[in-house]
Amino acid sequence: MFFASDNAGPAHPKVMEALNAANAGYQSGYGADTQMNDVRNMVRNMFDAPQAAVYLTATGTAANSILLATMANPWDTIFCSPMAHIHEDECNAPEFYSGAKLTLVPAENAKMTPDALRAAIEAEQSRGVHGPQRGPVSITQVTEKGTVHTLDELRALTAVAQGFGCKTHLDGARFSNALVALDCTAAEMTWKAGVDTVSFGGTKNGLLGVEACVIFDPDLAWEFELRRKRGGHLFSKHRYLSAQMQAYLTDNLWHDLASAANANCARLAAGLRKYAATEFLFEPEANMIFARLPRRDHKRLLDSGANYYVWDGDPNEGNPDAPLIGRFVCDWSMTDAAIDQFLDVLHG
Amino acid sequence: MFFASDNAGPAHPKVMEALNAANAGYQSGYGADTQMNDVRNMVRNMFDAPQAAVYLTATGTAANSILLATMANPWDTIFCSPMAHIHEDECNAPEFYSGAKLTLVPAENAKMTPDALRAAIEAEQSRGVHGPQRGPVSITQVTEKGTVHTLDELRALTAVAQGFGCKTHLDGARFSNALVALDCTAAEMTWKAGVDTVSFGGTKNGLLGVEACVIFDPDLAWEFELRRKRGGHLFSKHRYLSAQMQAYLTDNLWHDLASAANANCARLAAGLRKYAATEFLFEPEANMIFARLPRRDHKRLLDSGANYYVWDGDPNEGNPDAPLIGRFVCDWSMTDAAIDQFLDVLHG
Amino acid sequence: MFFASDNAGPAHPKVMEALNAANAGYQSGYGADTQMNDVRNMVRNMFDAPQAAVYLTATGTAANSILLATMANPWDTIFCSPMAHIHEDECNAPEFYSGAKLTLVPAENAKMTPDALRAAIEAEQSRGVHGPQRGPVSITQVTEKGTVHTLDELRALTAVAQGFGCKTHLDGARFSNALVALDCTAAEMTWKAGVDTVSFGGTKNGLLGVEACVIFDPDLAWEFELRRKRGGHLFSKHRYLSAQMQAYLTDNLWHDLASAANANCARLAAGLRKYAATEFLFEPEANMIFARLPRRDHKRLLDSGANYYVWDGDPNEGNPDAPLIGRFVCDWSMTDAAIDQFLDVLHG
Amino acid sequence: MFFASDNAGPAHPKVMEALNAANAGYQSGYGADTQMNDVRNMVRNMFDAPQAAVYLTATGTAANSILLATMANPWDTIFCSPMAHIHEDECNAPEFYSGAKLTLVPAENAKMTPDALRAAIEAEQSRGVHGPQRGPVSITQVTEKGTVHTLDELRALTAVAQGFGCKTHLDGARFSNALVALDCTAAEMTWKAGVDTVSFGGTKNGLLGVEACVIFDPDLAWEFELRRKRGGHLFSKHRYLSAQMQAYLTDNLWHDLASAANANCARLAAGLRKYAATEFLFEPEANMIFARLPRRDHKRLLDSGANYYVWDGDPNEGNPDAPLIGRFVCDWSMTDAAIDQFLDVLHG
Repeated sequence: MFFASDNAGPAHPKVMEALNAANAGYQSGYGADTQMNDVRNMVRNMFDAPQAAVYLTATGTAANSILLATMANPWDTIFCSPMAHIHEDECNAPEFYSGAKLTLVPAENAKMTPDALRAAIEAEQSRGVHGPQRGPVSITQVTEKGTVHTLDELRALTAVAQGFGCKTHLDGARFSNALVALDCTAAEMTWKAGVDTVSFGGTKNGLLGVEACVIFDPDLAWEFELRRKRGGHLFSKHRYLSAQMQAYLTDNLWHDLASAANANCARLAAGLRKYAATEFLFEPEANMIFARLPRRDHKRLLDSGANYYVWDGDPNEGNPDAPLIGRFVCDWSMTDAAIDQFLDVLHG
Repeated sequence: MFFASDNAGPAHPKVMEALNAANAGYQSGYGADTQMNDVRNMVRNMFDAPQAAVYLTATGTAANSILLATMANPWDTIFCSPMAHIHEDECNAPEFYSGAKLTLVPAENAKMTPDALRAAIEAEQSRGVHGPQRGPVSITQVTEKGTVHTLDELRALTAVAQGFGCKTHLDGARFSNALVALDCTAAEMTWKAGVDTVSFGGTKNGLLGVEACVIFDPDLAWEFELRRKRGGHLFSKHRYLSAQMQAYLTDNLWHDLASAANANCARLAAGLRKYAATEFLFEPEANMIFARLPRRDHKRLLDSGANYYVWDGDPNEGNPDAPLIGRFVCDWSMTDAAIDQFLDVLHG
Repeated sequence: MFFASDNAGPAHPKVMEALNAANAGYQSGYGADTQMNDVRNMVRNMFDAPQAAVYLTATGTAANSILLATMANPWDTIFCSPMAHIHEDECNAPEFYSGAKLTLVPAENAKMTPDALRAAIEAEQSRGVHGPQRGPVSITQVTEKGTVHTLDELRALTAVAQGFGCKTHLDGARFSNALVALDCTAAEMTWKAGVDTVSFGGTKNGLLGVEACVIFDPDLAWEFELRRKRGGHLFSKHRYLSAQMQAYLTDNLWHDLASAANANCARLAAGLRKYAATEFLFEPEANMIFARLPRRDHKRLLDSGANYYVWDGDPNEGNPDAPLIGRFVCDWSMTDAAIDQFLDVLHG
Repeated sequence: MFFASDNAGPAHPKVMEALNAANAGYQSGYGADTQMNDVRNMVRNMFDAPQAAVYLTATGTAANSILLATMANPWDTIFCSPMAHIHEDECNAPEFYSGAKLTLVPAENAKMTPDALRAAIEAEQSRGVHGPQRGPVSITQVTEKGTVHTLDELRALTAVAQGFGCKTHLDGARFSNALVALDCTAAEMTWKAGVDTVSFGGTKNGLLGVEACVIFDPDLAWEFELRRKRGGHLFSKHRYLSAQMQAYLTDNLWHDLASAANANCARLAAGLRKYAATEFLFEPEANMIFARLPRRDHKRLLDSGANYYVWDGDPNEGNPDAPLIGRFVCDWSMTDAAIDQFLDVLHG
């Protein structure tokens, strides 16, 4: 009953297998390993983007920050939602790497609206040299609230960005979960929808710790490489990153795992929905649920061993009838039994 | 016959075993894993430093840069040798993280001399607010040329630093190889010798990619944590770093592996020494050799499949009798057979 | 009829006189001039703060950015209003100097409310190492909308800050105008109200370009000096800054000039108030007015040679009856005649 | 007898006159003043560079740092002499603005030699992504030791730079003194000699505090403007910078003042040369002398009220016959009488 985060579960056995298999003999370091050649080709195939530059980092913060630094000038501002991971959860890393600041764009269901984005971009640069300049837009897909931008929604946002000459970055820590939810191709959700760079996450979906950075304009490749090295994110024994990503891409393991995670979440959501006191903040679309439950329910669940975050209060203190928000995240490794056990406790 | 780097070989089986064992069930992320508790205690025991703050990073550049940033102000200069990895091989990462600059201190056998260090520190700050201020000293042990500072040499350098109120960082990418070479304790080579922080390397000695950062003054701990996060170096699935370091520390695996590497290097050095044309640049002390050989020998070796760096020229072009410098690095995994095969080719 | 900015008028004759007088003989550079000794003492007297560190910069952006960098860590966030000059008009300079980010606190009449400030500070740091940490609060006095915090309002904000251990910076580009408006002492408006550092502006009030940085905790002095130099803001011929500030402080010239500017603004406001179509956005309190007037009035005024900013539209295009916001700023040098001429055009 | 620095004397009366004249009426701020239009044209004429971008800063450190930041990437290294002001006297400002590091190139008479520059540039980038990349070259003219690069020497250095695709910056804090010494045109000493950007100093030659930044490639103009603003170096009352530079350029005042300074220095050098114990470190070529004199002479001179720096020891302690290095700088305002008084004391 571990719903606290999708970074808490184990890596998938096939990933471990690949890692073990990679651990033989000598390999050149720093990305010159043979596995990385495969990875590069597999990512290009997956995204239908034969020219794309493809790099690996070991953390999502690194992927986001280095990509954004490659896209933004130090005097720019980056547009994102107020719930964006790059704003709330990366301890100034995007600003550190890029020198730019962030402009928070009002969002509905954690998705920036095109009108709000247009207004925010218009407002910047009206002050000439005095204010920050218009930098890239960063969209999180799946959002931090578990919602998923439709392809139309993505295109509407990138169209606004392009109208101002701004590039778009996709923070895809849960990229695969979104792809599964939308049942579309990686190309459709990225460059065909106007996205310029992607943090294609693996860590939250069955890897030990690897994200692929996909840059559709290969002219930015060398700058990315230098920024990655300057940030201390170029691995000497790079094959161990490559091997994970290789396994992830082989036979679309990423798709299987994201499908499993989303299905687990749907099972959990269905069970919650049957409980009269449940109030969803957002309609669950991928592998993350925000739902209000009475404090007494939280207390019972947590006391029974469930592990998840209560967002806005202490389940043990206060009015037992008052609702508190719980965040429930499902990864691929969760069992039906664990979910049902949780629901059994809830339903009493 | 792979002597190009000690980051090219595989991880040790016990490390892989530990990694596989760690891949079960749920664990809290970001360093709150149970393995990390063990690691912290084991490092403190190893260093006989019960108060030390202990953190893990996945690359050596991250370890060095974040430690130095925690020790230096943005208006400082950091003192190091001209061959220091932080100067030559980290693409401005130490400067990026700290804001400080580097002052290169003349070195013999890649070791700063106390007199040169004193002169360099004295020269800084003579200009008051106009010049950079005196920041920490960074010593590499094993040096980038394969030499090892004796404990007396270390103490002489840290004594100079302390005389000016400067702290000392030890870049120990090959910390274990040095410990084995000196046959001393970790405490003797660090805080007892006046060292304040240590990058205790694992990547070059049998891990997939983990370095321990050891900070003897726990007051710096929180700043280190924030700088690590801000640099994108805090791992969500941190247990996979912990597990590697745990295996490394268990039954002193680090010592066995470094002993093996140093022994391999000694075997290679002995064989090279028997070859009349060999000229060592530095007396090999740990696991790295710099030696001059006639160009014709390099060509023969490389043609036969040996893999190593020729430092100062092209083996295939120019006077076949003219000597060129080869760098030969041995890791723990090298076999006697491979070394002997290399020597056989050399001796013809 | 130049109401565009209080940085557009001339310097006061007494300031020029002092500058000319300072232009004789040799003086040591970089702040070691004799005038600076006087300035330091005069500022300390003015603020009743005998221990305060006092420095000069030539621009307000430098004063704000260097002070904030001295108060904030690179992993912090600085709390300010959404209209703050440090957010809107300094092209990322505060972020550049400090490494910190800015958190925008909801404001009424351009003044952060204590409740909003408390909520904003509470919200940060709830994410531990993941989010930015709580840094200083920056209050603008006079605000960018021409309003003035009362002493009670200032104290309420600094009390919130202190409750979280946060320091407070006062951006006083129009410090003198606020002092005159409140009819209080510099001490009352700063350290007695819980303020830790002050950008005490001179440029907008009769100097050519000098701001005094006042730091009540002298322990921060040396860091400020180093940051100023590292930013390129330490003047070799510093006496020309000192002489301006010396004249500004002599016989309270700053007070006379701010009184004149505020009186000019009051005259303008009174005249605007008599015009039926005028709608003030904020009650004018110092030397700046934001007022709505029908587009036709703006057009007539601008055509007649008035110089000021129309904030939200083009006076020449659109419905002539629709109101647009004008910003009118008065400096000390404005004549009654110019103001009356403007009002005559307005009233037709 | 004030030879400590050329930033210690007064501004020229014509400059003060222009400043006073500029102090009338309203002017738009931030470089939109009418004087700046004149300045731009006059600088373009002076440099025979009709397309050049021209900006003003108030300090030399700002000019150098912002220009270098506009030319260098954060992962680059900037090549300069070990005596360069940007290395020794700007407290990490060039690194702060650019993110780049500095590579010190061996120099003779404070001038980098072409061979040493070639070797230094060649050495960088040999490590691919691991080391810093090749950034701009910065040449100081007049050097910090008072020597002047001939046009041939300049061309030889820029030719090396161009051979590697590197741009060249000229730190011309004493640009005018060099021009007078070489008796050439500004174009000949800059773009015709392969220089890309220039810090054209005014502060050390009769202004209160203004340097012109000249950028021959106008494509860099906007980035310079943004970096200047982001550094807090854009002046609101910019006309007071413009007016100084305008006076400086009118009737070649800069040339008259530099001629006077150099003549003063020649008079001083001639007198020193007649004194048997004098030993020049470098042949004086512009307005700065480094000369060894016995300690007893320094003591006598300083006791008699002469003001200058003794570089390498305390004149009051030690062997009175032992020579110490004095630095003597002459500005335009020095009188023959003061120089002769100094020489009289020396000659006893």
